[in-house]
Amino acid sequence: MNRETLFQNILSKQSFLCVGLDTDFNRIPTHLLDMDDPVFEFNKRIIDATHDLCVAYKPNIAFYEASGAKGWESLRKTLEYIPESQFTIADAKRGDIGNTSRLYAKAFFETLNFDAVTVAPYMGVDSVAPFLEFENKTVILLALTSNKGSNDFQLEIQKEFEKPLYEKVMRKAQQWGNLDNLMFVVGATHPEKFEEIRQIAPYNFLLVPGIGAQGGDLERVAKYGMNDHCGLIVNSSRGIIFAGEGEDFAEKARAAALSIQRQMAQILVSSNLIKVHQV
Amino acid sequence: MNRETLFQNILSKQSFLCVGLDTDFNRIPTHLLDMDDPVFEFNKRIIDATHDLCVAYKPNIAFYEASGAKGWESLRKTLEYIPESQFTIADAKRGDIGNTSRLYAKAFFETLNFDAVTVAPYMGVDSVAPFLEFENKTVILLALTSNKGSNDFQLEIQKEFEKPLYEKVMRKAQQWGNLDNLMFVVGATHPEKFEEIRQIAPYNFLLVPGIGAQGGDLERVAKYGMNDHCGLIVNSSRGIIFAGEGEDFAEKARAAALSIQRQMAQILVSSNLIKVHQV
Repeated sequence: MNRETLFQNILSKQSFLCVGLDTDFNRIPTHLLDMDDPVFEFNKRIIDATHDLCVAYKPNIAFYEASGAKGWESLRKTLEYIPESQFTIADAKRGDIGNTSRLYAKAFFETLNFDAVTVAPYMGVDSVAPFLEFENKTVILLALTSNKGSNDFQLEIQKEFEKPLYEKVMRKAQQWGNLDNLMFVVGATHPEKFEEIRQIAPYNFLLVPGIGAQGGDLERVAKYGMNDHCGLIVNSSRGIIFAGEGEDFAEKARAAALSIQRQMAQILVSSNLIKVHQV
Repeated sequence: MNRETLFQNILSKQSFLCVGLDTDFNRIPTHLLDMDDPVFEFNKRIIDATHDLCVAYKPNIAFYEASGAKGWESLRKTLEYIPESQFTIADAKRGDIGNTSRLYAKAFFETLNFDAVTVAPYMGVDSVAPFLEFENKTVILLALTSNKGSNDFQLEIQKEFEKPLYEKVMRKAQQWGNLDNLMFVVGATHPEKFEEIRQIAPYNFLLVPGIGAQGGDLERVAKYGMNDHCGLIVNSSRGIIFAGEGEDFAEKARAAALSIQRQMAQILVSSNLIKVHQV
């Protein structure tokens, strides 16, 4: 999916919400546990209940990999079930030497047919480039992550460059990719950084984790992070999919997603994105 | 497996070789392709042919993940087949926010029972710590990797710290882990750095990729990188497992491994490690 299609989906759904399918086996409601593939059954119901409210789904691969081959099978079935119009993100944070990154790209872009994959930048250009070579696919590169450990290395000022590591990552990567095949992860837990980040990368989409359970604030992220193509995909995982615990978990998930979608619609209107493009 | 046991294995086998099971499906000899699980059958024959010459096996997970659930099943069977006395390394380069890293740790340490996993440091302390909490398991943290892209960020001098990023990673990580649960990846393609690296981390084991296909030099690595517990696990993947292409591929692999093991035995003798500890 390219940037323009994603933007049109955001406008028509009045939403830039990504639902994180971080399906922790231990939190699946008990009435699903007797079924053949509880993880897939859970995801299926979450997708049914939320797909008109979001533009993207993002399974974090760790939650599937923890169950080995069975988990990969649940992931494959989930991905097949997600409607075509959704932007699908493998939150995998992969990255390896060139010939190996190529195989990770194959795993997520061909074997599983995701639209995008998150990639870690530590190993530099040849660990990222193989992902960028796939047509109509997107790399979402870690820049400034939402967790406490983002302070350890990402914010460290570089001597000659005189700016933090995450900025160096964002500037270099823009030489490797383009607006259609490169996005960045920027955590909602650093809302004060979004103004700066929009100077570094004015046009790229940003995938923003960290609202909800991690405490980030949607209004502030939107205020400083939005651009003329919206430019934001804001993720919520636990806050939506585990909003309820009982047999009505899917309705509870829908209610949680709806509440965020309404806030997003308001933001899109007040930023004139919906009006401007719908005339 | 702890550091002392690994060292004893190195002494008794006169080898610090790790065989990289980067089993590229497209390079498996044709006579195995009719079998039920060609990847596992290939690995089984490689393990049979090399296990007395090496102390560790390191499947790179990308090569398995590229085949989805089937690949994970081949990986599981491979791991079960590797003799107990071998140090098993999941070359996965994972790392995510705390609750997610915990699941990756579960995938590799519990679901698959690896001894060690490679971890990427970009996301900082809470992305690494969950792996360190597993008893008798080891994190091998990326420090200075063997690829061209290691020049992009890892060698960048930090302003206040006045040293490159990889050194910061190594110094910080030593506050998180200990000699038994923390090793570092340092590529053989940077032989001139090993003296420096031994000042930063004198005692930790280093996992050294990059000899063979990537062009690193074993003698120089050993000269500057060895410590009183050997302190090195040197990996070769393609150079061993794809040494031959025909029905005799396993014998060719054994010959390639033997040639490295002999060089290693010589190095261990000339550095007095074998004599000192065998008396």
